[in-house]
Amino acid sequence: MFKPLTRELNDLIERTRDRQLRLAVTGLSRAGKTAFLTSLIHQLRHAGVEARLDLLGAAREGRLLGARRVEQQDLGVPRFPFDQAMAALDAHPPRWPEATRGISELRLVLRYRPRKSRLFGSEVRELTLDLFDYPGEWLLDLPLLAHDFNSWSQQQRTSGQQRDEFFSQWHSAVTGLKPSDELDETRLAEIAELYATGLRAAREAGFSDLQPGRFLLPGDLDGAPVLQFFPLLGLDEHDPGGLAKLPADSLYATLKRRFRYYQQHIVKPFYRDHFQRFDRQIVLVDVLGALNAGPERFDDLSRALSRLMESFDYGQRSLLNRLFSPRIDRLAIAATKADHVTPEQHSRLTGLLEALLAEPIKDLRYADVPVKAFSLASIRATQVREVSDNGSTLTALRGTTLSGEPTLMFPGDVPSQLPTADFWARQGFDFTAFRPLPRTSGALPHIRMDAAIDWLIGDKLQ
Amino acid sequence: MFKPLTRELNDLIERTRDRQLRLAVTGLSRAGKTAFLTSLIHQLRHAGVEARLDLLGAAREGRLLGARRVEQQDLGVPRFPFDQAMAALDAHPPRWPEATRGISELRLVLRYRPRKSRLFGSEVRELTLDLFDYPGEWLLDLPLLAHDFNSWSQQQRTSGQQRDEFFSQWHSAVTGLKPSDELDETRLAEIAELYATGLRAAREAGFSDLQPGRFLLPGDLDGAPVLQFFPLLGLDEHDPGGLAKLPADSLYATLKRRFRYYQQHIVKPFYRDHFQRFDRQIVLVDVLGALNAGPERFDDLSRALSRLMESFDYGQRSLLNRLFSPRIDRLAIAATKADHVTPEQHSRLTGLLEALLAEPIKDLRYADVPVKAFSLASIRATQVREVSDNGSTLTALRGTTLSGEPTLMFPGDVPSQLPTADFWARQGFDFTAFRPLPRTSGALPHIRMDAAIDWLIGDKLQ
Repeated sequence: MFKPLTRELNDLIERTRDRQLRLAVTGLSRAGKTAFLTSLIHQLRHAGVEARLDLLGAAREGRLLGARRVEQQDLGVPRFPFDQAMAALDAHPPRWPEATRGISELRLVLRYRPRKSRLFGSEVRELTLDLFDYPGEWLLDLPLLAHDFNSWSQQQRTSGQQRDEFFSQWHSAVTGLKPSDELDETRLAEIAELYATGLRAAREAGFSDLQPGRFLLPGDLDGAPVLQFFPLLGLDEHDPGGLAKLPADSLYATLKRRFRYYQQHIVKPFYRDHFQRFDRQIVLVDVLGALNAGPERFDDLSRALSRLMESFDYGQRSLLNRLFSPRIDRLAIAATKADHVTPEQHSRLTGLLEALLAEPIKDLRYADVPVKAFSLASIRATQVREVSDNGSTLTALRGTTLSGEPTLMFPGDVPSQLPTADFWARQGFDFTAFRPLPRTSGALPHIRMDAAIDWLIGDKLQ
Repeated sequence: MFKPLTRELNDLIERTRDRQLRLAVTGLSRAGKTAFLTSLIHQLRHAGVEARLDLLGAAREGRLLGARRVEQQDLGVPRFPFDQAMAALDAHPPRWPEATRGISELRLVLRYRPRKSRLFGSEVRELTLDLFDYPGEWLLDLPLLAHDFNSWSQQQRTSGQQRDEFFSQWHSAVTGLKPSDELDETRLAEIAELYATGLRAAREAGFSDLQPGRFLLPGDLDGAPVLQFFPLLGLDEHDPGGLAKLPADSLYATLKRRFRYYQQHIVKPFYRDHFQRFDRQIVLVDVLGALNAGPERFDDLSRALSRLMESFDYGQRSLLNRLFSPRIDRLAIAATKADHVTPEQHSRLTGLLEALLAEPIKDLRYADVPVKAFSLASIRATQVREVSDNGSTLTALRGTTLSGEPTLMFPGDVPSQLPTADFWARQGFDFTAFRPLPRTSGALPHIRMDAAIDWLIGDKLQ
């Protein structure tokens, strides 16, 4: 007698649960987060009519009716500035939307017809889709939770030669400092500012593996002591017991206290209040930009991504699993700006992304988190043109550069494996940044946004 | 046998408690908070040598040895930017320091000799002085805690004609809206932005009594729904029971939810985490600026100040007393920029301030909170000159205007009572803003900073 009821109840619970999905978008700065989220929202809002979403089953089958924006759940989180982004794209000339600076969110209600309607043909269901955008730099801070100040200091010895240059001023300032020194607040703030300046300069120059992440986007914490610490070099030469006994106003104790505060009040709250509530995640990577920037920056991106991906590895031994209970059950990784290379290069781009993330992907599969790689263009900025050259036909890209020059170009070949010394020697890749195409009408033009959307939410629209 | 021990213990506790003091500085924007705090820190740091602090007993008696900056307690609060402020004052030409945008703090350790040393003559004691700076606008939000959304909406009907002008665009947008309307997020954000624009324009034009305070200084909350609400007019024509039954996505329910979130997550945390831990407070008021701006803005300042002062009225019936346990035991109110009028006007300026705050002062005295009024100049920007005019001698001010012009002027008389219609008709007061004097050497020149410091911390240096 109870069985049928139980089944119906289960069904109901299942469906209720399926009616809400929290999807997060991240990536290091300039990976294209704002463009991706803007396009995603725009495509879903135009799904019923103009959007070309053939690779999204529910849209292809005419079952996706559209999307409506409603009030988000957390009133204290900035709303994702979709309207401002669209205004930038619709400006004359079109501009890329401004980058976001912290976490933002936006809630959509999607209306769709289930594939096999159980009751009658006209049944319409709703899926509440919470979208989040946050800086990938915040994830670079996760490993910091596994450290204490001593081990973190030792690990922060920068590696690359080019990168070290940015920290030379900081380096001269800390040379000769002893853990027992008693520095006044002003001097401490000055040295910390030199460290932050180094981080900012390194990021400007295309480096990614930079810690602590909030030093780059301080927001309201600008000027707070919690963002004024730095690694102390040479701590391994000191006796740990002796260090622990240094007075509270010693350099060592002060930096250690701030490091701990950063862990407890900055890093942990993000994972606790936001990250562990995400259901799905897409990580965007500007592979082409890194290719263009040369071997040291490319290796640095690789290191940063491995570190970033640790946040999604919920293996038994994982730090994250012990601290929180994250529930991301599906992950997409995407090489963005695919429109900046010719179409026959797209599969090579995906291949390169997979090669770049080979180790993390292996770990994720082992931990049973489904992951899929894409190459895509959130908002197309180029058109493909066939060009005759001495009798043979070449594929080229036509677009307008950021400074407004119409350009026809052959960006070159993307290596489908990690680039070798030989590739760098030839430096066979020429990346040009284009401004968005003027929007004619209807949905934003894209490359494979539909495939990514299908993987991220398609199963909830069955 | 126990008595002597108890007394000694009490003494010890008393002295330990006396060794820490949390002093807060506030005032509406442009009241001169940053200049005051910069000067305060500078005077105390130079107390032993160059500073002229004759009205501060401990300094006059040579017992105040100086002050040292040490690490503040709350690492997550921005440090008061003292060095940047001093750099601005020492620039060529000197500039006023940039205004702060939220709460900031700074800790000093003062070293002094007690007046009657119990043990031996060379005893030196330390007082830890925590200094806080926060926008007075935040205090204007206190009364909001006493309201629900309905009563707040009704109370927000703007009064003055000039003030209403700034809200005309918002007014047209809300005219015709019904509490039951279902507005999309974008429209709601647009209308809220019109309201915020009105608040900003009114502040620019010199009005002070503006709510909600965080709309003017959003910081990291920029774009968050919690800062996107506004009063609904005409709610009293609706049946409260009917309003309460409106669906969650109705205009009324949405605005009410955001209003409550603002109360709980914005207003209360400031009182809970900061305000109730302050021991002493000084409220700065730009009386001269308001005098200069005309009768409507002057009345508006008077209203804003009465509202602001409610935060210090801990009478039995006070809202604050019921919600928190504030412990401010001494309050100073100060009319700033006294160097912008000639010296014989200073007592009139103090009198006018007392007249302006007559009601709150009465309430505070009744609630047994000692309060004292001052007129002062944190950092002098003018010099006094005697000028012969047709045989009689006049007192004039010499200074350099913000645009760099050396000026000699007679600002006119300050009324020592609330200005009458007659005063406004004559408009007898001419306020010019001056840039800081170039600093020669030693401590910053000031007017009666020492008197204010003596009242605020002098008893702790006995």
